[in-house]
Amino acid sequence: MAVIALLTDFGTRDHFVATMKGVILQIDAKATIVDVTHEVDPQEIYAAAFTLRQVFPYFPEGTIFVVVVDPTVGTSRRVLATRYSNRIVLAPDNGVITLIHRDAELQEARVVENRRFFARSLSSTFHGRDVFAPVAAHLSKGVGLGALGPVADSLDLLELAKPARAGNGALSGAVVYVDRFGNLITNISALDLSAANSPGRTLRVRVGDTDVGPVRIAYADVPAGQFVALIGSTQMLEVAVNQGSARDRLGVGRGAPVTVEP
Amino acid sequence: MAVIALLTDFGTRDHFVATMKGVILQIDAKATIVDVTHEVDPQEIYAAAFTLRQVFPYFPEGTIFVVVVDPTVGTSRRVLATRYSNRIVLAPDNGVITLIHRDAELQEARVVENRRFFARSLSSTFHGRDVFAPVAAHLSKGVGLGALGPVADSLDLLELAKPARAGNGALSGAVVYVDRFGNLITNISALDLSAANSPGRTLRVRVGDTDVGPVRIAYADVPAGQFVALIGSTQMLEVAVNQGSARDRLGVGRGAPVTVEP
Amino acid sequence: MAVIALLTDFGTRDHFVATMKGVILQIDAKATIVDVTHEVDPQEIYAAAFTLRQVFPYFPEGTIFVVVVDPTVGTSRRVLATRYSNRIVLAPDNGVITLIHRDAELQEARVVENRRFFARSLSSTFHGRDVFAPVAAHLSKGVGLGALGPVADSLDLLELAKPARAGNGALSGAVVYVDRFGNLITNISALDLSAANSPGRTLRVRVGDTDVGPVRIAYADVPAGQFVALIGSTQMLEVAVNQGSARDRLGVGRGAPVTVEP
Repeated sequence: MAVIALLTDFGTRDHFVATMKGVILQIDAKATIVDVTHEVDPQEIYAAAFTLRQVFPYFPEGTIFVVVVDPTVGTSRRVLATRYSNRIVLAPDNGVITLIHRDAELQEARVVENRRFFARSLSSTFHGRDVFAPVAAHLSKGVGLGALGPVADSLDLLELAKPARAGNGALSGAVVYVDRFGNLITNISALDLSAANSPGRTLRVRVGDTDVGPVRIAYADVPAGQFVALIGSTQMLEVAVNQGSARDRLGVGRGAPVTVEP
Repeated sequence: MAVIALLTDFGTRDHFVATMKGVILQIDAKATIVDVTHEVDPQEIYAAAFTLRQVFPYFPEGTIFVVVVDPTVGTSRRVLATRYSNRIVLAPDNGVITLIHRDAELQEARVVENRRFFARSLSSTFHGRDVFAPVAAHLSKGVGLGALGPVADSLDLLELAKPARAGNGALSGAVVYVDRFGNLITNISALDLSAANSPGRTLRVRVGDTDVGPVRIAYADVPAGQFVALIGSTQMLEVAVNQGSARDRLGVGRGAPVTVEP
Repeated sequence: MAVIALLTDFGTRDHFVATMKGVILQIDAKATIVDVTHEVDPQEIYAAAFTLRQVFPYFPEGTIFVVVVDPTVGTSRRVLATRYSNRIVLAPDNGVITLIHRDAELQEARVVENRRFFARSLSSTFHGRDVFAPVAAHLSKGVGLGALGPVADSLDLLELAKPARAGNGALSGAVVYVDRFGNLITNISALDLSAANSPGRTLRVRVGDTDVGPVRIAYADVPAGQFVALIGSTQMLEVAVNQGSARDRLGVGRGAPVTVEP
C-alpha cells in the first residue's frame, strides 16, 4: 500500500492536480494519494524545498513524494528519482531536494528517462500529468528506481546561506519562510542557538532593528499580541506574535535579517 | 475502517496538515482521512464549532473528528476526547464542541493525558502533529477512549447568544456565520420561526435597517440579484442574494443584528 | 472500487464539501473520493465545463464525476446522470457537460428522479448533500443508471463560440479560460491552427492589439518574462508569459479577442 504525496505549485482551482490523480488511479487504483500542498508560490523552489523537508520524516517509509515545481518545464532539465531514508522523491533536478539532501543520506539517485513509464503522448508544458504522475504510479506498483534510467552522478542543489557567527557569539541569519499565520521561520537552528549560548546568559533576538525579546518556549509565554521568539516545530528559530502575525506587524518577509545576541 | 476527519485553522499552503496525515498513516496505513476544512480563520473558535456541527451527523458512526483550532497551544489547556452519537471528537478544551454538546447527548468524555499515544518528542507549538494526529490514529486502530486518560468532569463551553423574543412575537438575533457565497447564517432557527409565526401572518426579515423580505423556500424564489431570506440547509434562518453575495451587498458580517417581525 | 470525483463551486472553507463526503462514506465506505476542484467561480458554468473536460479522459473508466455548480438549485431544473466513454457524470442539466458532449459519444442519459436514492429529507438549497452525494454513492455501490429515472431525451447545452476564419486563413477567437498561472487558454485548437497554416509560413498571435509572437512549443522557448504562444496541455492555443502571468501583463481575462495571422 504505497502513499503518493503530491507537492506542486499548481493550485487547486484548475484541472492540473486532479488530472495527475486520475492518471495515478488509472495505473494504480489502490494508491493512497495525499496532498502535501499545491500552493507553493509559482516557481518558488526554496519554499518547495522547505515544505518537503518539513513533511518528509513524518510520512511512512516507502512513501513516494512527487514534487512538481518546475519553472523550466519543456527544457532539457532532468527529472530525478532519489531515495533517502527509504522514501522516494520524484522531482525536477532544480534544487527542491536540497534540504533533504543536506539532512539525510542519499541511498540512490536515477535520471528518469525510460519513456516506457511516461504517457504515450508527451506535452511540453504539463510533465506533472505526462511524466511525474505515471512514473509515481508505476513506482507505487513496484517498479524499481533502477528501471527508470541511469544513475545520476550529480544533483543540482540550491546554495544555502548559513547564519554568520560574530566574535561575541552573536548570530546573524535571515527569515527563510513565512507560514500562513505570519510566523517568520529563520535559518538559525536550535543547535546554532545552543552553541551561541552559555549558562547564565540570555539570548535576545532582533528582526531588523526590532527587539522581539529572549528565546522562549511556547507562543503563549507572552500575552496575546506580543512578539515571541522560540524554537518552532521545525527545530528552527521562529519569530511570532502570539495570536497574531509577525509578518504583518513587522512588515517583513523572506530575507529579512535576524540577529541573536547574548 | 475508521474515518478520520480533520478540521483545523492550518491552511493548506504550509506543511502542517500534510505532516498530520503522514503521522496518521505511519500508525494506521488504512485510515480514511477526510478534510473537513483547514481554512477556519486562525483561532476563530466559534466558526470551528459551527462547521463541526454542520458536518457531524453526516459522517459515519465511528468517525474520529480531529479539531485543531488551538490559540492557546503550549499552555495548560487540556485536550479532550468526547463521544456523541457514536462519533468521537478530539479537540482542545476551548469550546469548539459547544454546538455538538448542545444538540447531542454526551456519551463519554476523557482528558487526553496518556503520553504513550503521543509523539516521543513533544513540541510546544504543534500539538496537531505531536498529540492530535497520533492519538487519532491510535483510536482508529481500536484504542478505547478510556485508555487516553481520566474522565473529564467538566467541559469548557462557549456562551451562545440566543435570539430575543419581543411581546408581539418579533425575534432579535444575529448573524453567526458567513459562508463562501456571502450567505449570512443567523442564530434564529426554523423552530424559533415556527413559534413566532401564526396562520395568515407573514414574517418579514431585516438585517440592520434593510428589509430583505419574507421568509421563502429557495434562493431561486426571487430574481437573480435580489435578497432572499430562507431556512437554509443548516436549519437556521439565512439571508442571501440569489446568485450574489448578501455580505457584499449589505457590507455586514458576523454579529450583524437580524430581526424577524410578523 | 469506484472513484467519485467532485467538482463544485462550494470552496473548501465551509462545511459543504465535507458534508458531501460524509454522506458518500455513510453509504459506500470504500469509495475513493477525489477532489477535482471546489474553486470554480460561484456559478460559472463554462469554467466548470472546461475543467470537467480537461480531467475527464484521465480518470479511470467507471469514475463517477459529480458536478455541483448549480445556480438554480431549488427550481425545477433537472439533475442528469449521463455516461460517456464509460464514465458517469452526475450534474444539473445546465450545460456543464457541453464540452464532454461535444467531444465524446453519449452512451446513456437519465433524468435523476428516483427519490429512493436521495436523502430522506430534501432541502431546497443543498442538493449536493441531499441528491448528488447519495446518488453518487449508490452508483458507486453498483446501482445502474436506469434505476435513477427515465431516459433524458434532451440535454441543455451551452452555445460555444467557434473561432472565425478570414479569407487569408487568419483566425479570430477568444480567451475562454484563465488558469492559476495567468495563462490565457483560447478556443482555437491545435487542429484549427494546422488548417490555418501552410509550409514556409509563420503564424503570429495577437491578444487584442498586442503581438505575442509566433506559435512555439514550450514556455521556456522564450526568456523569462516574455510572451509565449503555444499549444498547451489542453490541446488549445494558449498565451503565457514564461515564469510570469499573461493575465496580469495584458490586463485581460475571459472573452479577450485573440487572432492568429499568417
